[in-house]
Amino acid sequence: MAHTLKLGIAGLGNAGQAVLRDLPAISEVVLGAVADVREKAVAACRAKNPHAEVHSSVEAMCQSRNIDAVWIATPNECHAVHAVAAANGGKHIICEKPMALSLSECDRMIEAAAKNRVQLLMHSKAGDPPIRKMREVITSGRIGRAIQISSWNYKSWLNYPRLPAELDTAKGGGIVFRQGSHQVDIVRCVGGGLVKSVRAVTGRWHPRFDTEGNYTAFLQFADGTPASLVFNGYGGFDMTELTWGIGEGGYPTAERAAKGSVVDAPVDPIEKYSEPTRAERRRRDGARHQPFFGLTLVSCEKGDMRQSPDGLYLYTDRGREEIPCAPFTDRAGELRRLYEAVLEGRPEFADGRWGKATLEVLLAIMESSKEGREISLQHQVPCTL
Amino acid sequence: MAHTLKLGIAGLGNAGQAVLRDLPAISEVVLGAVADVREKAVAACRAKNPHAEVHSSVEAMCQSRNIDAVWIATPNECHAVHAVAAANGGKHIICEKPMALSLSECDRMIEAAAKNRVQLLMHSKAGDPPIRKMREVITSGRIGRAIQISSWNYKSWLNYPRLPAELDTAKGGGIVFRQGSHQVDIVRCVGGGLVKSVRAVTGRWHPRFDTEGNYTAFLQFADGTPASLVFNGYGGFDMTELTWGIGEGGYPTAERAAKGSVVDAPVDPIEKYSEPTRAERRRRDGARHQPFFGLTLVSCEKGDMRQSPDGLYLYTDRGREEIPCAPFTDRAGELRRLYEAVLEGRPEFADGRWGKATLEVLLAIMESSKEGREISLQHQVPCTL
Repeated sequence: MAHTLKLGIAGLGNAGQAVLRDLPAISEVVLGAVADVREKAVAACRAKNPHAEVHSSVEAMCQSRNIDAVWIATPNECHAVHAVAAANGGKHIICEKPMALSLSECDRMIEAAAKNRVQLLMHSKAGDPPIRKMREVITSGRIGRAIQISSWNYKSWLNYPRLPAELDTAKGGGIVFRQGSHQVDIVRCVGGGLVKSVRAVTGRWHPRFDTEGNYTAFLQFADGTPASLVFNGYGGFDMTELTWGIGEGGYPTAERAAKGSVVDAPVDPIEKYSEPTRAERRRRDGARHQPFFGLTLVSCEKGDMRQSPDGLYLYTDRGREEIPCAPFTDRAGELRRLYEAVLEGRPEFADGRWGKATLEVLLAIMESSKEGREISLQHQVPCTL
Repeated sequence: MAHTLKLGIAGLGNAGQAVLRDLPAISEVVLGAVADVREKAVAACRAKNPHAEVHSSVEAMCQSRNIDAVWIATPNECHAVHAVAAANGGKHIICEKPMALSLSECDRMIEAAAKNRVQLLMHSKAGDPPIRKMREVITSGRIGRAIQISSWNYKSWLNYPRLPAELDTAKGGGIVFRQGSHQVDIVRCVGGGLVKSVRAVTGRWHPRFDTEGNYTAFLQFADGTPASLVFNGYGGFDMTELTWGIGEGGYPTAERAAKGSVVDAPVDPIEKYSEPTRAERRRRDGARHQPFFGLTLVSCEKGDMRQSPDGLYLYTDRGREEIPCAPFTDRAGELRRLYEAVLEGRPEFADGRWGKATLEVLLAIMESSKEGREISLQHQVPCTL
């Protein structure tokens, strides 16, 4: 390959659209192809990207000579099949969260990537600048080891229009699979990665959608550090009330949707992904801050940390200090890391084994709730940051 | 007794001083006597309260005909002995938290109160107006049952001057016994009282004091509701940053102590309780808001709740609504409840069985951490609010 990486995007839903949106920010990666089974989505993309190949099947795109890598943004239940297809086509991979629906699917993905000597990276909020910076503060030793990690998120996930698969746990739907991935990634990253055990209770309290809408989880790391994870996706309280109004994109959150617009049923995929997409519609006014996925408080031996609007607040016996972070570039940052990993042939965070370990935690959250007991984990890997 | 209740205060430390401070707010209760082993504390009190009896022993005060009730504010390890002495003297009781150090001590207190037909009430932040109001919203059925409770508190507990016993877990010291009492009371009250199991990790990370300084606890109620409790007392991040600067007294918290004034050793009781006491010294400027013991988020089937500065915020599909609360009167409110309970001969919240159940949770938090497993509870009682 040349010093430009040609990317194929598998799936033009919200995640795929977000990749398209962020691609222009990194000149070393260019769009080579897109694939989607939905004609309308493909047509809209073709109109805007006339030079990119267009495929109606991911498998076909993965055989194209016009791409070096694939961003897997298809439905969760397809991640494994599509990642294996990409690897077998010799393409490097970034995979959306969750990595897959089972540990054996993860194994197949990891094996295919290894066999074909391609990079397999995970889309992960653990790689966002504030989370990396927290990890950096810990590994620097400045305030000692982590002793207590707590993460809360309350957001209106179930009140946005959702596809049927997003509301079906068997297909990777519900907030444990779809939102827990991020929270667990963040907490695992800060805590060093190696979760020893999980005790959790999940809830299915939405009046119409029979999938997880909330969970409370107690994790313990191998070094004994406890972590508390709380997520509620029903749309009452919103965590941005406690994060300067800043949400996941780093921008002030839009005003809440007018009340009364309660979502009653899953939406049709064609309707949902009619233009404009959510990625484009989201408010992007004003200066961009760092992204907030709820509120995470990290206590160490000699101080505490949490995100500030543009970096971190570090609390020690010298008072509160603000630490700046590198600008947040969203998926462009992940494309850059993929580019560097491919170019330099070295491992990058977060890889397939990391994604599998996070999935193991998610599955344990659901298993613990079902069985009413603590679950021991077997497939954890350390954070390489 | 007449329609005035004569109160004896056992112990003139912070809690006893707070009772003295709040007594004038309730005309139906008057000071009859005080008891403390420390001559200086007694002398200072006598100067301000010339009509009250003064005793150097709680047992002696409990035989006085000049009191109808005793507020037990002696060190935690003395609560049981002093409560039994009060009951055997025919005195009604309000006991500071934690109720005692063991469940068998609680049993002796409960039995003595029953045998002597006196009220045994617990000082508890679960009785504060915002917590009562949350419970009231739940029992009203307006937003359905509780499905998820989460409570965080980060405060500089270990950086205040502390007596040796406050830093000795064997004597009821450390933040599980001394601060966990409040957090568990609040969460049990909102959740209905009946905790089924506890999984927790406690930490002893203070560089000089070998007692619990933080904990993370996962509780499950008998109806399945999960609760997450996080407490950190080392003095880095302060939770009032997220509660409009309002702390436990309902007033804006004073500026932090100048940095560098780190506490290195336990303090001498005589020095600590020299005038002015902390209860008097605390900033009490401006309008009084409701008290905040950290931040507690309560999710129910149809909405969420948290405290607002002067009441509750209720989040439902109709948006955010503020619910006012009765004014916070601190220990005067508890004296009024004792007065009414005595006058009307009826049970009041929170009684001895409640205090014992909260202690059971605290002991389980420490046991779970020590043994690395979930602890099942046997002595829980429902919230009568």
